[in-house]
Amino acid sequence: MDIRQLTNEVMAHLDELATYSEDPCGLTRVFLSPEQKRVSELVLGWMKEAGMEAWTDGIGNVVGRYEGISSGLPALMLGSHLDTVRNAGRYDGPLGVVTAIACVKALHQRQERLPFAIEVVGFSDEEGTRFHATLLGSRAMAGTFDYTVLQNVDDKGISMADAMRSYGLDPDKIVHVARRPTDLLAYVELHIEQGPVLETEGLPVGIVTSIAGATRLMVTLTGSAGHAGTVPMSLRRDALVAAAEAILFIEKRCSGKIGVPVDNLVGTVGQIQVLPGASNVIPGTAKFSVDVRAPADSDRLEAVRDIIKAIQDICSRRRIEYEIRKVHESPSSSCAPWLMTQLEAAIVAEGIQPRYLPSGAGHDAMAMAAITDIGMLFIRCKGGISHTPDESITPEDVEIGIRVFLRFIREFKPRVRCP
Amino acid sequence: MDIRQLTNEVMAHLDELATYSEDPCGLTRVFLSPEQKRVSELVLGWMKEAGMEAWTDGIGNVVGRYEGISSGLPALMLGSHLDTVRNAGRYDGPLGVVTAIACVKALHQRQERLPFAIEVVGFSDEEGTRFHATLLGSRAMAGTFDYTVLQNVDDKGISMADAMRSYGLDPDKIVHVARRPTDLLAYVELHIEQGPVLETEGLPVGIVTSIAGATRLMVTLTGSAGHAGTVPMSLRRDALVAAAEAILFIEKRCSGKIGVPVDNLVGTVGQIQVLPGASNVIPGTAKFSVDVRAPADSDRLEAVRDIIKAIQDICSRRRIEYEIRKVHESPSSSCAPWLMTQLEAAIVAEGIQPRYLPSGAGHDAMAMAAITDIGMLFIRCKGGISHTPDESITPEDVEIGIRVFLRFIREFKPRVRCP
Repeated sequence: MDIRQLTNEVMAHLDELATYSEDPCGLTRVFLSPEQKRVSELVLGWMKEAGMEAWTDGIGNVVGRYEGISSGLPALMLGSHLDTVRNAGRYDGPLGVVTAIACVKALHQRQERLPFAIEVVGFSDEEGTRFHATLLGSRAMAGTFDYTVLQNVDDKGISMADAMRSYGLDPDKIVHVARRPTDLLAYVELHIEQGPVLETEGLPVGIVTSIAGATRLMVTLTGSAGHAGTVPMSLRRDALVAAAEAILFIEKRCSGKIGVPVDNLVGTVGQIQVLPGASNVIPGTAKFSVDVRAPADSDRLEAVRDIIKAIQDICSRRRIEYEIRKVHESPSSSCAPWLMTQLEAAIVAEGIQPRYLPSGAGHDAMAMAAITDIGMLFIRCKGGISHTPDESITPEDVEIGIRVFLRFIREFKPRVRCP
Repeated sequence: MDIRQLTNEVMAHLDELATYSEDPCGLTRVFLSPEQKRVSELVLGWMKEAGMEAWTDGIGNVVGRYEGISSGLPALMLGSHLDTVRNAGRYDGPLGVVTAIACVKALHQRQERLPFAIEVVGFSDEEGTRFHATLLGSRAMAGTFDYTVLQNVDDKGISMADAMRSYGLDPDKIVHVARRPTDLLAYVELHIEQGPVLETEGLPVGIVTSIAGATRLMVTLTGSAGHAGTVPMSLRRDALVAAAEAILFIEKRCSGKIGVPVDNLVGTVGQIQVLPGASNVIPGTAKFSVDVRAPADSDRLEAVRDIIKAIQDICSRRRIEYEIRKVHESPSSSCAPWLMTQLEAAIVAEGIQPRYLPSGAGHDAMAMAAITDIGMLFIRCKGGISHTPDESITPEDVEIGIRVFLRFIREFKPRVRCP
């Protein structure tokens, strides 16, 4: 089977996976759901067809192993996740699993064995859709699973521990999912970009340099509500106008129009609510989220400091009270230079200009970085759009992705560890 | 009974009216409700006690008439409304009805007849809470009732026409509610300020110069949603950041920091929603209200033009699509200078500094302006707060209001009409 045919099979598999959804009108496939179970069986079958030994581990990850020239060698691990957000696209996650299987299938068809094993993982939870905690599958595999999240409940009040038992898994055995660092040579993930950089530059693939760290704040500004017709402008303490100033500051600071421009720093206000929320009432309260990400933790922390300072200044000038709550913080994860170099070599060998870019979104690779070196290959997606049914990629780009990924695997040289 | 005692009775009557509510934990009294019926009976009783002939008219207004030195003379009409917003304060509306009755009672106790009749009206609907159309009672009396609103339905799907019939009123007879201009000498309304100007200046009462005209817009900005981590700042089309710029422009323009400062121009964004509305997604859509008011229509219309122009410029620069819909427009109503002069004389005679101020809020006087000259006396309220249970006034200010209003009535000179 040539690469073109493998690509067609990959696209068909992705379409087939997208039919397993709790919602008949969209794609929603969450952790420990009946849909996960059926998709797991499907993927296990594809792994076996590709010449792998395949099983489900203690957190519901599906794992396939293709032995190297001898049995039991350390493995190059490839993979991504099989769960989705609500009303998702069909490529975020599954693309990395299905293309990795296709690459192994190509080796298997040539009866080619490498001087290392290959493992392909379909992680059971990356998005955190059901239990509001992300990277559950990869964290278990990396040995960094947070056992307190077993008490998290879904929207129906079912705890993760109970959901695991109903699924046929034993929470007490999550500890056995963890791999030893010596068993792994690296973790390399293929994923759609979920951003517009590659499309803008006309490139099908890119090499990820790092996965951005993130800080999320919830900001509540409290001024004074009042009648929109009767309170003179000079006597107002309008919480929304203060929020508007903060929103514009965040944009200016993150785009480098204030302070020093920082590559790939991004800041977003994605949620805002005002109270009382009537057209003829001055907003007394404005509550908004702030999401700041950057490849370099110091850049992010400095931007967050400046944003908090700006909110304080705005509020002091406008006689507004503020509460700023940090609701999430994660450091950035760097991809290993030796893996980036090998990904670049494979891209160049395919006649494509290598483009390095950071990932603003989180990925399973973040969790895997705790036990092994990580690398990521991005595939161009249409309009940079993700997490919606409009998520789209071309078979041509997928074919290039498979060619690059297969070449990378076949020419993979484990890191030379200095004594 | 001296004025102090009348004041105490007024405060007690206001407290009693506040107990008639559809909601046991707040004050909500809407048009054609059982609560309106019971309050009407109460007020009719107080009117009769004050020496008036009293009745309910064909739109549910309660009307009391105190004849002058002879029967059938043209009337000075006083009043305000008895309906409320949801979760209202107890003074917005009822204060003007109850104080007017108290003034007539003071005349009646002295058996004092004036060279004109006095009518006191408790309008049945000013707020428009139930049928989403305002000033129903006063518009019927002014002969400007819009009969299409009879088809408006409340939240339970009951049309105004049906609600009238259930209440015992005949929609076909609304036409008979209208008064002839020659029957009225003027309409003068006492009302809480609902704004902070009098409190800020330490004054108990003020003379209204005009009731502001208002324009209300609904603005929808459409950019491009995207992942908060993956779309570089330079490639974003963030609808909320564009809205934030518009919100700041509205503040600057209405407070005179852009363009020529305009007295009593106000602009408010009281509602805003963003879509998709997740902390990690760039807002693709932002929808917000704009409320602009000014005593002079030309000032308001110019500000609205500038705001629309600014939104267009912001959107063009940011590659954002916009839709701007005008949802409400009402011209301003000027108070008659001859009535302002007589109110000023009464205020000065009570030893108080006269303060002229515009009303940013709408009032029944707006509707009555269609058939007679209007005047308004504002009473200070705490913190400028209205339309909430925190609405508050002092008995001392109410007493001053009654003294001023009674003096105004006793010394009232009808306008000299030039032949």
